[in-house]
Amino acid sequence: MLKNLFDILLGRHLSNEEEQEHRIGPLEGIPVLGLDALGSSAYGPEAAATLLLPLGIAGTKFVLPVVLCLIVLLLIVYFSYRQTISAYPEGGGSYTVARENLGPVAGLIAGAALMLDYVLVVAVGISAGVGALISAIPSLQSHTLALCLVTLTLISGINLRGVKESGFAFIVPTYVFVFSTLGVLVWGVFQTILAGGHPVALVNRAISPMPTLETASLWLLVRSFASGCTAMTGVEAISNGVKLFREPTVKNAKRSLGIIIGILALLLLGIAYLAQAYGISATNPGEPGYESLVSQLVAAIVGRGSVYYVTIASVIAVLLLSANTGLADFPRICQILANDNYLPHILAERGRRLVFSAGIISITILSAILLIFFDGVTDRLIPLFAIGALLAFTMSQTGMVAHWLKNMGQKDRKNKPYFSIAANALGAVGTGVALLAVMISKFTEGGWFTLVCIPTILTLFYAVKRHYDHIARQLHCIDPLNYDHMRSPVVIVAIRNWNRMTRKALRFAMNITPEIYGVYVDSGRGTVQIDADWEKYVTAPAHQWGYHPPRLIKLKSPYRQLNKTIMDLITQLEKDHPNRQVAVLIPRFVEQKWYHYILHNHRSVLFTAALRLRADPRVIIISVPWYLQ
Amino acid sequence: MLKNLFDILLGRHLSNEEEQEHRIGPLEGIPVLGLDALGSSAYGPEAAATLLLPLGIAGTKFVLPVVLCLIVLLLIVYFSYRQTISAYPEGGGSYTVARENLGPVAGLIAGAALMLDYVLVVAVGISAGVGALISAIPSLQSHTLALCLVTLTLISGINLRGVKESGFAFIVPTYVFVFSTLGVLVWGVFQTILAGGHPVALVNRAISPMPTLETASLWLLVRSFASGCTAMTGVEAISNGVKLFREPTVKNAKRSLGIIIGILALLLLGIAYLAQAYGISATNPGEPGYESLVSQLVAAIVGRGSVYYVTIASVIAVLLLSANTGLADFPRICQILANDNYLPHILAERGRRLVFSAGIISITILSAILLIFFDGVTDRLIPLFAIGALLAFTMSQTGMVAHWLKNMGQKDRKNKPYFSIAANALGAVGTGVALLAVMISKFTEGGWFTLVCIPTILTLFYAVKRHYDHIARQLHCIDPLNYDHMRSPVVIVAIRNWNRMTRKALRFAMNITPEIYGVYVDSGRGTVQIDADWEKYVTAPAHQWGYHPPRLIKLKSPYRQLNKTIMDLITQLEKDHPNRQVAVLIPRFVEQKWYHYILHNHRSVLFTAALRLRADPRVIIISVPWYLQ
Repeated sequence: MLKNLFDILLGRHLSNEEEQEHRIGPLEGIPVLGLDALGSSAYGPEAAATLLLPLGIAGTKFVLPVVLCLIVLLLIVYFSYRQTISAYPEGGGSYTVARENLGPVAGLIAGAALMLDYVLVVAVGISAGVGALISAIPSLQSHTLALCLVTLTLISGINLRGVKESGFAFIVPTYVFVFSTLGVLVWGVFQTILAGGHPVALVNRAISPMPTLETASLWLLVRSFASGCTAMTGVEAISNGVKLFREPTVKNAKRSLGIIIGILALLLLGIAYLAQAYGISATNPGEPGYESLVSQLVAAIVGRGSVYYVTIASVIAVLLLSANTGLADFPRICQILANDNYLPHILAERGRRLVFSAGIISITILSAILLIFFDGVTDRLIPLFAIGALLAFTMSQTGMVAHWLKNMGQKDRKNKPYFSIAANALGAVGTGVALLAVMISKFTEGGWFTLVCIPTILTLFYAVKRHYDHIARQLHCIDPLNYDHMRSPVVIVAIRNWNRMTRKALRFAMNITPEIYGVYVDSGRGTVQIDADWEKYVTAPAHQWGYHPPRLIKLKSPYRQLNKTIMDLITQLEKDHPNRQVAVLIPRFVEQKWYHYILHNHRSVLFTAALRLRADPRVIIISVPWYLQ
Repeated sequence: MLKNLFDILLGRHLSNEEEQEHRIGPLEGIPVLGLDALGSSAYGPEAAATLLLPLGIAGTKFVLPVVLCLIVLLLIVYFSYRQTISAYPEGGGSYTVARENLGPVAGLIAGAALMLDYVLVVAVGISAGVGALISAIPSLQSHTLALCLVTLTLISGINLRGVKESGFAFIVPTYVFVFSTLGVLVWGVFQTILAGGHPVALVNRAISPMPTLETASLWLLVRSFASGCTAMTGVEAISNGVKLFREPTVKNAKRSLGIIIGILALLLLGIAYLAQAYGISATNPGEPGYESLVSQLVAAIVGRGSVYYVTIASVIAVLLLSANTGLADFPRICQILANDNYLPHILAERGRRLVFSAGIISITILSAILLIFFDGVTDRLIPLFAIGALLAFTMSQTGMVAHWLKNMGQKDRKNKPYFSIAANALGAVGTGVALLAVMISKFTEGGWFTLVCIPTILTLFYAVKRHYDHIARQLHCIDPLNYDHMRSPVVIVAIRNWNRMTRKALRFAMNITPEIYGVYVDSGRGTVQIDADWEKYVTAPAHQWGYHPPRLIKLKSPYRQLNKTIMDLITQLEKDHPNRQVAVLIPRFVEQKWYHYILHNHRSVLFTAALRLRADPRVIIISVPWYLQ
């Protein structure tokens, strides 16, 4: 029953051979790996514009320049990542690139930054989507957190079913979003041109912000740019997931990256240009009368008709689903780290649907904690978010520069990769400067948290690695089996009374050794019965068949500490038989129904656990199960 | 560390021999077994008086007659239980008496009634005490439930430490209660006589209830009596706990019972008489201005000075601690039922301090659930409470009548027990009539719950019994060991690669059988390495020493279902070797620190669990532990 439930919820087991079949093409790549990047267009320009609010309506004219800077940075990153995809067709995540070219520490910093980033992608994506939904339907406000968690569970469930299904589930909302939003923007541009640059908004907001600053300082513009950098997140996803694409892998991945960056740039540009043209400014999130920039803009261009609702619905869907990028990528970076022994190995195990189930579950739990902690409102997470992404970018681009420089050294190469070096160096500098800008301007607003978090994660990586190395050293074995000093073990059988379980245990013991001790612990009830039974059922037949009979050892335990009493006996027997292994044979009644658990004492389970806790390498534990018919 | 913590919290382990030392005398019996009975004086008369509220101030004159009826019933019960103590010095709980004389069903009904009653004792005692505390300090009102649960935990902890300590902890508040309350009542009676029957209250309540009825109907009086019957609860405790008394056991127990009943009767009488003399009526619990009858009375007699506060504090303490009677007795009745296989055996196991820890924990949980469910206000539980007690009384007294009648039949007895028969018959009729009165008058107020609950508990008893009988039948064994068909087992060793763990496992396998199969499951990584290692480390040395080498079996598992693949192999091997046992040897890495658990895959644990679930009686599980140094 449980099995069937899992089959329905998670789908049937997939064979290892089915992996190829589950690869994706460039267009499928957009929903699977690009949702995060595209979704960020819905909050990136708004984040930049919010910082310009103190300028009042005058601030709108600074949004476009800031967004143009972002687009330039985006294009730099695009060319830079194209190089990475070519150089690392096996999946060139920041971790791989930085580790191979800059050394393990750089790799781990990039890995930690990415892990942090993906968790934030999920939390921010979901809470932004739910936030958008709530501004459309204010009556849902009181259920913010519940909506976030339900969405998280749904997306997580889809991912546990495997990557192809999730791509398919997300394809429709993604394309609706792209076409409706681009369509609205094009229509807006058309209107603007017709109106000679000053179009009339179909729906206009009554409230206009009062300026509190007279002119824009450079610092304000830097802070606005830093906030807008959230629009950069998600670009990493493609180069990290190159392996997901079907042949020709590299070409498909590059195409997918190009399409995503292109759409994103158009969206950013369109939003910034039209916001200025229509004179729309951001409103303060979390205050009454808040309305998202995109919602205002769409309403201004097409009015609050069916086009508005379709567009906004697709924005909400894309925001909610953009969390999927995190859920698709976090398990992959975890797998790579786990294979290198920096994370628990279970993160590298494929589940029934070929996905890394443990990684999906981990990020689900981590982002659920974030959502619960911030009560579903993750405004304050947005700066952290950009820091993780930009840190990973910088490590990756710098690594790529080192990569090309190393390759240059190889004499047999004809075409020196000057272009590649230039592209990646530009990328490294660009993202590095942006990182610095975000870090400084957002330090007190949560940037410090990254500085705490990343070293913590690094410490964790090294602790895990140290543990695995330690085990590997201890388990490493170059000794062959040897057949010297072969001796049958000393077997101790724990006895409570003469019954079928006891008999079965003794029969098995007799089959493996002639040296058997039945141990009976007297906790106050006397030993008369067991003495008589042992003589009648064990000793007498042994003599009759001409065997050495198993011995009965009776122990007193006035403090009802059965386990300790038997442990002491084991220590004694080990002393008496210095060169032999001691096997403790525990008859175990196996409960086959859950409610049987409360009816039994679990002495055998507790005793087994106590034996293991004792950590005596000479003791082997044999469990002779007994099943109720 | 954990061990030390338990030592401090629960006290050191006690030996079985220390039991005698922990027995109690008649005076110690009052706090240990009598708190419930004495504490009920604080709510019994009030419960009766509350029902008379519709009569207004005129109602006060009916309290005394109702309480007199209660005292008569109490004395009947006293004489009746003296007979029980004599006849059952081993502890004549209702269960034992009813079962032995009326048959198992009657016994189990009494047992179920008692179990229910004890849970209610705990919940009502604690919530009444906390209620009294809150009427003294109203600012604690919002913490009602928390206070209840903390008190419950404390009392439960004291009981887990063992019976002598709990007797000692409770002795001071009990005696303060008895002496201060009796003292105040005597002073009140003295004042009343001085004032010629009409004393003047030192503190008078402004509010006097408005009558809504003109005359008291018989039905009203019966309902008032039924409510007052809660004052009867707790008497059972002594006859149930006879064994706790030191020698001479029976005499000490009877003395203790006599003292308790005597004090209780005096308290009831004094409260009822003085309430009438001072013209004090009950107030509606749960309504503003509520003050308990006892609090009003004490204030009227001695004013709100230090005597008032000492008395009320001791009332609160006794109410809170009266829950202890339930906690002391519930585990004992459970032990008796568990020894008769009607409850899980764990309830009959003595813990480190000679108490039945599982029983104490069970009643703690059950009463915590009641407290949480009723939010710490258990007014509505009071009727149920009396029903359980009276049902047990009736079963017990009826059983005693049957007991004496049986004894009469034995011809060698000279003194026919006419007095005993009369006492017990009177007891049975008296409590039976009271039970009927409570049942009818309280049916809609919760009495029906008992009618649902007791059959449910009985069903549970029989289900548990059936399970144990089933196991006993299957385990019962009269076959001796036989040495026929002795064959070494077929051993399967699960292999992942060549390491020290594998080597240790194979060494042990070689010591117990020549028939070894190393099983390697290929889940997509290929078998090249294991083939080479097996040849080098296993096969070659075996040939060199002239042994038959363990065989390597390689299995494919494209769906990563390792367990299933190995299970199929086991089935195959069982077919190939029809007369031999199959032992599955599982190398197991044993985590010694909790945080190691997340670092390992627990394949061995899951595999072991899967083997047990398979319920194949021919398969033995051998765990070869590996410990990190």
